Amino acid sequence: MAAATPLLKDELDIVIPTIRNLDFLEMWRPFFQPYHLIIVQDGDPSKTIKVPEGFDYELYNRNDINRILGPKASCISFKDSACRCFGYMVSKKKYIYTIDDDCFVAKDPSGKDINALEQHIKNLLCPSTPHFFNTLYDPYRDGADFVRGYPFSMREGAPTAVSHGLWLNIPDYDAPTQLVKPHERNTRYVDAVMTIPKGTLFPMCGMNLAFDRDLIGPAMYFGLMGDGQPIGRYDDMWAGWCTKVICDHLGLGIKTGLPYIWHSKASNPFVNLKKEYNGIFWQEEIIPFFQAATLPKECTTVQQCYLELSKQVKEKLSMIDPYFTKLGDAMVTWIEAWDELNPTGDHLAKLSIADGPAKK
Amino acid sequence: MAAATPLLKDELDIVIPTIRNLDFLEMWRPFFQPYHLIIVQDGDPSKTIKVPEGFDYELYNRNDINRILGPKASCISFKDSACRCFGYMVSKKKYIYTIDDDCFVAKDPSGKDINALEQHIKNLLCPSTPHFFNTLYDPYRDGADFVRGYPFSMREGAPTAVSHGLWLNIPDYDAPTQLVKPHERNTRYVDAVMTIPKGTLFPMCGMNLAFDRDLIGPAMYFGLMGDGQPIGRYDDMWAGWCTKVICDHLGLGIKTGLPYIWHSKASNPFVNLKKEYNGIFWQEEIIPFFQAATLPKECTTVQQCYLELSKQVKEKLSMIDPYFTKLGDAMVTWIEAWDELNPTGDHLAKLSIADGPAKK
Repeated sequence: MAAATPLLKDELDIVIPTIRNLDFLEMWRPFFQPYHLIIVQDGDPSKTIKVPEGFDYELYNRNDINRILGPKASCISFKDSACRCFGYMVSKKKYIYTIDDDCFVAKDPSGKDINALEQHIKNLLCPSTPHFFNTLYDPYRDGADFVRGYPFSMREGAPTAVSHGLWLNIPDYDAPTQLVKPHERNTRYVDAVMTIPKGTLFPMCGMNLAFDRDLIGPAMYFGLMGDGQPIGRYDDMWAGWCTKVICDHLGLGIKTGLPYIWHSKASNPFVNLKKEYNGIFWQEEIIPFFQAATLPKECTTVQQCYLELSKQVKEKLSMIDPYFTKLGDAMVTWIEAWDELNPTGDHLAKLSIADGPAKK
Repeated sequence: MAAATPLLKDELDIVIPTIRNLDFLEMWRPFFQPYHLIIVQDGDPSKTIKVPEGFDYELYNRNDINRILGPKASCISFKDSACRCFGYMVSKKKYIYTIDDDCFVAKDPSGKDINALEQHIKNLLCPSTPHFFNTLYDPYRDGADFVRGYPFSMREGAPTAVSHGLWLNIPDYDAPTQLVKPHERNTRYVDAVMTIPKGTLFPMCGMNLAFDRDLIGPAMYFGLMGDGQPIGRYDDMWAGWCTKVICDHLGLGIKTGLPYIWHSKASNPFVNLKKEYNGIFWQEEIIPFFQAATLPKECTTVQQCYLELSKQVKEKLSMIDPYFTKLGDAMVTWIEAWDELNPTGDHLAKLSIADGPAKK
C-alpha cells in the first residue's frame, strides 16, 4: 500500500447533521479544515447555526431541502439525524465522511490525537476481505499479511465501500442497555480494522462513518424517522442492513474498527426508549428478512438493487406495520431524487466497480 | 459472567506434539503445572523425550499409538504435528488445550505475562455470537455489551466450541509469505476476542488452540499429513474447515483473538514450501467445497456430521487427487477409533448442547 495517505481534499465531503452551533468543530480544526463541510440543519429552519470561522461549508435547512427536492422532500426525515442523508445526495464528491456533533477527537494509547478521517481514508483506499476471514485482521495493514491457509486467489480482496469507525467513552448502546448500565464507558482501544464477512449483518452506526459515494451512495438512505414517524434511532441501522445486503450482492466490502472518536455525552435513555420502542420489536423480524434477502443477478447497479429491496420491503415487512409500505415508497422516492441530483451517478458507480481493488 | 475464572483443573488436558525435550515447559510452569499433559511423541519412538520435573503427564510414542489403535492407527499421521489429534482422542476430559513446543509466554502491553490458558477457558466458558456481528467485539467481556441494533433475541448467543488464540513475534505465514517477508514480526497486540460469523470459514491454526471436546472433539481430526502423504502443514486447516462447517450446522460458536502466545522461531520456509506445495493449489478448490457444504438436518451429532462430510469429501474432492479418497476413508477410521475409545462420547455431546449457553 501507499506509505503516505492521500488527503483526498477535493474528493471528500464531511456531512454533519445538527440542531446547534458547531463549536465541536474547533477541536477537529487541524483535521477537518482542508475539507468541504455539508451541514444539514435539522429542526426549526429560522434558527441560525454558527459555524466556527475558517471552515468551508454549505448549509441546508428544511426550507432548502423542500425547495431543492420539491414533493420528493418527503423522503427526508425531519427532527431526526436521519436527515443527514440529504447531504450525501447533494454532495458531488466521491467520498463522504459523516460525524455527529457530540463526537470529539479521541486519543490513541500513546496519548496522541487520532486523525479519524485519515484512518477512514486508509480504510476506504485499501481492499476488504469479505470472502474469507483473516485471523490477523486487516491483511493490507503495515506489518500484517494474510495468514497461512488464506487462499491466494482471494488475496486481491474486494473494493471497500464503507468504513465504520468506533467510539471511545460513551458506547453506542440502545435505551434498555443505557438504562441498565448508565455508568458503562468504553475504554478499550482495540487496534484493529476488519472486514465484516459476506453474508453477515452488522449494526451500522452513523456517528463516525465513511463511505465511497460512487460505489454505494444510493444505498445510504437513512429512512423515515423522527417527526410524524413511529420510530427513531434506527436510521443508520436501516441504512446498514440495506447497504450490507447490496455490498454482498455487488462484491463490495465493509470494514469496521479503527478509527475511534470520543463520544462525549450519552443521549437521554428515556427519550431514546420512546424512539426505539417499536424498533426493538420490529428488528426481530426485520433482521431475519435482511438475512434471507437475495437480489437477482440482473441487479448490477446500486440503484437497481435498492429498488428491488424496496419491493421486497413492501411485500414482506408491511405485515409488521403499515409504516413499511410508506418506507418502501420513500425508498423509491429517495432513488428518484438521487438520480435527479446525480444524473451520471449510475454510470460512475459502474465504472468504479469495474476498476477493481487496489493491488497490494 | 463469573468474576473469577474457574481453573478447570480436572476438566482440561494440555496436548503437546513434539520430537524433542520439553524444555519450553519451564516457562509455562506457573500456568500449566496444575494440569495434566498428554504428550504425543512424533518420529523415532526409541528416542527419549525429557519432561521437566513436577509435571503430571502421559506420553505416547508411535509404538503406543499402534498398540492402542491397532490397524486404525493408520488414520494418525506420522512425522507431522498432525499426530497431536491422537491426544484429543485418548483424553477423557471435557476441554483440550493444544500448544506447539516453540511457543512461549507472551507479554501484554503492560509487560505482564499472559496466562494464555486462563483466557482460553474464559473464551470457552462464555457464549459466542455467530448469528450477528457485534461491532464492539465480545459483548460478554467486562466493560462491553451488545451495541444498539443487536437483536435482543440473539443475545443469549451460542455455546462456544473453539477458542483460537493468536501469536506475537513470528506470525503464522505460509511458505511463500515467509520467503517474501523473512523479517516480518507481529508486534500488534489487538485486545479483542470475537466470534467468527456463521457461514464464514477461517484458517484455524493449531499452535495455540483450545476446544470443548464434548461439543466438537470428533471434528478435530488433523488429517493425513507428513510421512507417506503428498501434503503437510494443512492439518490444522483441514480440522478448521470441517469444524467450522459442523459448528455452523449444530449452532456452536468459534472465537478468535486473545490470548497471544510468543512464537519463537519461524520454521524453514524451504522445507515448508515442499510440504505446502500441493495444499496451495488444492485449497483453491477445497475452500469453495467447504463454503458450499451443507449437512442434512438429520445429522445431530458431531460424529454423524463428520461421517456425512467424509462422504462429500470422497465424492467431490477425489477428482483433485486420489489422496482425498484416502483422506475420506481416514476420516471414517478416525470416527470409528474415537467411538471405540470414547464409548459414551456421543451421548455426552448431545447433553452439552442441550445445556445451552451460559446466561450473562
